[in-house]
Amino acid sequence: MSTIIAVPRETRKGERRVAMVPSLAGKLVKAGVTLRIQSGAGQSAGFDDEAFSQLDGVEVESDVDRLWAEADLVFCVRRPEDKRLQEMKSGAGLVGFLAPWERDDFIRALAEKQLSAYAVERIPRISRAQSMDALSSQAAVAGYKSVLIAAEHLPRFFPMLTTAAGTIRPAKALVVGAGVAGLQAIATARRLGARVEAFDVRSAVAEQVESLGAKFVDTGVKAEAEGGYARELTQEEKDQQAAVLAKHVAQADIVITTAAIPGRAAPRIITEAMVKDMKAGAVLVDLAAETGGNCELTRSGEVHREGAVTVVGPEDVPGMLAEHASEMYARNLWNFVSPCIKDGTLSWDMDDQVYAQSVVTHAGEIHFPAEDKS
Amino acid sequence: MSTIIAVPRETRKGERRVAMVPSLAGKLVKAGVTLRIQSGAGQSAGFDDEAFSQLDGVEVESDVDRLWAEADLVFCVRRPEDKRLQEMKSGAGLVGFLAPWERDDFIRALAEKQLSAYAVERIPRISRAQSMDALSSQAAVAGYKSVLIAAEHLPRFFPMLTTAAGTIRPAKALVVGAGVAGLQAIATARRLGARVEAFDVRSAVAEQVESLGAKFVDTGVKAEAEGGYARELTQEEKDQQAAVLAKHVAQADIVITTAAIPGRAAPRIITEAMVKDMKAGAVLVDLAAETGGNCELTRSGEVHREGAVTVVGPEDVPGMLAEHASEMYARNLWNFVSPCIKDGTLSWDMDDQVYAQSVVTHAGEIHFPAEDKS
Repeated sequence: MSTIIAVPRETRKGERRVAMVPSLAGKLVKAGVTLRIQSGAGQSAGFDDEAFSQLDGVEVESDVDRLWAEADLVFCVRRPEDKRLQEMKSGAGLVGFLAPWERDDFIRALAEKQLSAYAVERIPRISRAQSMDALSSQAAVAGYKSVLIAAEHLPRFFPMLTTAAGTIRPAKALVVGAGVAGLQAIATARRLGARVEAFDVRSAVAEQVESLGAKFVDTGVKAEAEGGYARELTQEEKDQQAAVLAKHVAQADIVITTAAIPGRAAPRIITEAMVKDMKAGAVLVDLAAETGGNCELTRSGEVHREGAVTVVGPEDVPGMLAEHASEMYARNLWNFVSPCIKDGTLSWDMDDQVYAQSVVTHAGEIHFPAEDKS
Repeated sequence: MSTIIAVPRETRKGERRVAMVPSLAGKLVKAGVTLRIQSGAGQSAGFDDEAFSQLDGVEVESDVDRLWAEADLVFCVRRPEDKRLQEMKSGAGLVGFLAPWERDDFIRALAEKQLSAYAVERIPRISRAQSMDALSSQAAVAGYKSVLIAAEHLPRFFPMLTTAAGTIRPAKALVVGAGVAGLQAIATARRLGARVEAFDVRSAVAEQVESLGAKFVDTGVKAEAEGGYARELTQEEKDQQAAVLAKHVAQADIVITTAAIPGRAAPRIITEAMVKDMKAGAVLVDLAAETGGNCELTRSGEVHREGAVTVVGPEDVPGMLAEHASEMYARNLWNFVSPCIKDGTLSWDMDDQVYAQSVVTHAGEIHFPAEDKS
């Protein structure tokens, strides 16, 4: 019997992505698995049922209960509804953005059902696993989109324009956090013609920032940590950072914040006072809105004014580019799971660091380390 | 007595621009005129009363009736409310987007009140008057913004991306109409990394299109007309154009239409059949929505879906970039009026082609030629 991989329609409000797209579905089928996709699952990402059903070996399933009950492995974007776990076969697999640090009871339920659950957020950031790194692929989408969101709200041009009606000076953008999202935001703001400054507590990224044509803001704070992320700062470091950053925020037309520490609340970097000092008409886009915000004034899911400044706290940003975000995510999942498929049958290789580190529950045991819970 | 120039707050719903900005207000004052701006007039464009009141010689007026009654010249963006004309001094001036072809009764009222009214749409497109060309400056804003509107709705990236999660191919954009708006749309789409094709019935613009890195679509139809605009096409020409264009529309991720014939309904270029043939997820932005649309399916002021295609019919597009659009427009008005100000007093030079051609009414007479009404 070949392994049945099921892809349900996402149920979280606002989620437009789907965990599999036709181009990668074809690869799974060629690898010998049976792929079942819930009817309508790809709709909001631009893939209709027909795009899947025309592929040999892909079944479009309209009975969602059957979909969950017969699956050997489920691909999801967001953590599924609790009731679905109860419907799954004992021993079946689940892969997705499970955010295991958020819900102890969910993790326990996974273990009790003997499910093999993998959180894509915990795939190690080693070069061999880059092609599986869903946090990075979705962050790239968010970084690109953050600049377009800023441009949507900015009452000014990004590029310099020389016209018969005078010269328009280029907008100044400040990108806070130069990880994958930040670098993509820098690149996009540069494409649109802005002058860009960027800041990160990991001074090692200065070179990457500069190679994209942006200026690195050096606050003197260095906080590199494992896995390419930053550690939390001491109060003294925070004060030092704030003092330098305040000046750059005040001069910017656009501020985009992208600082994240996975599994923890977003670091607060932009204070209320900094926002009050921003230029009239300036726009702040806080990509960390969903995890508490990098800015003290961010309201998650809202666009609001603080005086003459527009503060945007967008949610589900990768889903705003649903088609390409889904495609990249599906490719991550394909790259993650395909090494474990032999002759159409799935068998997890728990000796491999990739799976050993991303597994949350397996064979009734919880592998998510207690010290990672915050 | 120095001439009093008044700038009222725009009253048309959705209009965010203002006809004067602080930087140009300073120039008017230095030229010796008195500038009165209605309290709150600049608010929606990002200029508060204080930005004006801190300038010597600029008065912020909260009594709107007084503002109109004492003005020697009024700068406006859109045609003012009818009742305001009755409040104006006989012989006073009015400059703005008056759209004289739209309302005969409005023109008659201007003449009866002996007002000197100038429609900026009718400023001749001669090189000396380029710096006064408000149609062009606002079209540049709209062209830039049209691409950002498309990007807002497109579920895909514009640029090519090479990531660990695969390569994303660049989006294909088709720009219909390569006037000022179209050229700016081409430049912006190119900046964002799209592959761009452009089409215009004026084949002379092919070189400009190509210099921006886009490919010119040659339909074989040539329809250059006076003033840099296109003439209306014959049915045979329309059919020929449609046959070629249909193929390019079908391949595009983004279609931006910018074709305009001033004073007339927008030419219908994109048929319903062409939209039905567009790719799933594709976006059409119709900059001609307010004048009837270049696309048969456009709904002015709305975003709607036609199958899997998003059709956007934006209104008040220059006002979406209210600050810079206002600045460019104010500079146009300054360039238009300043040659007629001597020692703080305004005197129109009706021997000058610029004023002779843009005047709509003067000294009780209607100068708007009957043959221009459609």
